[in-house]
Amino acid sequence: MTEVLEFFFDFSSPYGYFAAQKIDALAEANGRTVRWKPILLGLVFKETGMTPLTSQPVRGEYAKKDWQRMARYMDVPWQLPEPFPVATQAAARAFYWIDDRNPDQARLFAKSLYHAYFGEGLDISSPETVADIASALFADKDELLTALKEPTVKRRIRDETAKAIERGVFGSPYIIVDGEGFWGSDRLWMVKKWLQSGGW
Amino acid sequence: MTEVLEFFFDFSSPYGYFAAQKIDALAEANGRTVRWKPILLGLVFKETGMTPLTSQPVRGEYAKKDWQRMARYMDVPWQLPEPFPVATQAAARAFYWIDDRNPDQARLFAKSLYHAYFGEGLDISSPETVADIASALFADKDELLTALKEPTVKRRIRDETAKAIERGVFGSPYIIVDGEGFWGSDRLWMVKKWLQSGGW
Repeated sequence: MTEVLEFFFDFSSPYGYFAAQKIDALAEANGRTVRWKPILLGLVFKETGMTPLTSQPVRGEYAKKDWQRMARYMDVPWQLPEPFPVATQAAARAFYWIDDRNPDQARLFAKSLYHAYFGEGLDISSPETVADIASALFADKDELLTALKEPTVKRRIRDETAKAIERGVFGSPYIIVDGEGFWGSDRLWMVKKWLQSGGW
Repeated sequence: MTEVLEFFFDFSSPYGYFAAQKIDALAEANGRTVRWKPILLGLVFKETGMTPLTSQPVRGEYAKKDWQRMARYMDVPWQLPEPFPVATQAAARAFYWIDDRNPDQARLFAKSLYHAYFGEGLDISSPETVADIASALFADKDELLTALKEPTVKRRIRDETAKAIERGVFGSPYIIVDGEGFWGSDRLWMVKKWLQSGGW
């Protein structure tokens, strides 16, 4: 069985977006598969006392420049959407609902959501927009919109986030491989080293 | 005249230590020289509301692991000194005192201090230890110990830190090149891209 690499992220996280461009190829090149796991960073921050970057003085302005440069040097589409950040409950609920049916579709859906938000500036906090993106790919829009209101679907993302927090996840992106945690899109090189050297 | 790259750091900053291993070679390979500029991160944090990593829940424990892995994968000596972090007034005062006389010596002294603290675990908060390290290289120990108590020498590091804050420096390491700021040892690749591509 292929050992799994877990990729935790929030759909409103720029560094999650950047890492999402590379994580599958990185894992595949090292014989791993990726499990994509959206979380709600707002719930995570309540545990750690951390705050969204753009609400921080000085560092928030710096982050905006860092994202621009990152996109430029990685050569990926980028805009700072308005509003930013957004609530990602609808996006994450839809993800897990699709993931339970077809993980490959869910991964494709996640990439589409990220592109819609940071590539095109669409407001992905809206269930309607989320369902549009899913239905353009494969899902039945009405079925999904109905599902997004179901208590079990709502609970799922809270449970996934709580489980992630228990396992030490405190930011986005956060990667767990062989029980080892790596935080940030700027630690992908370290994940690669870890995979290539067989851990420590 | 060679354009300068400014390298801001605190002597008690692990990521400053890691960046210090590479910054000269990176600049030189791109036709730049480096001006090393120690600052007092404690004063910087008062401006931004940021706190030392190890005092932060969850993230502090993660940072300790990140430093270990960083040292391992960069193949540089590493230990988390006790105490950590330490006051770096004496170290920074001594640096500028030497720097005014001989910048090349000051750079060598800075590398020695970093190695003493993170490589060997010496407590570099003590003026005595700082003066020992300087005198092992080139300075007269008693002359330096006397200088460290002078008001102008004490004021210098506060002034340098204040100037750095005015220019947007909010962490360690922080690099300014062509007016553009880069934060963190994990942005050296971006500084390199910047230098190679001639900016934006």
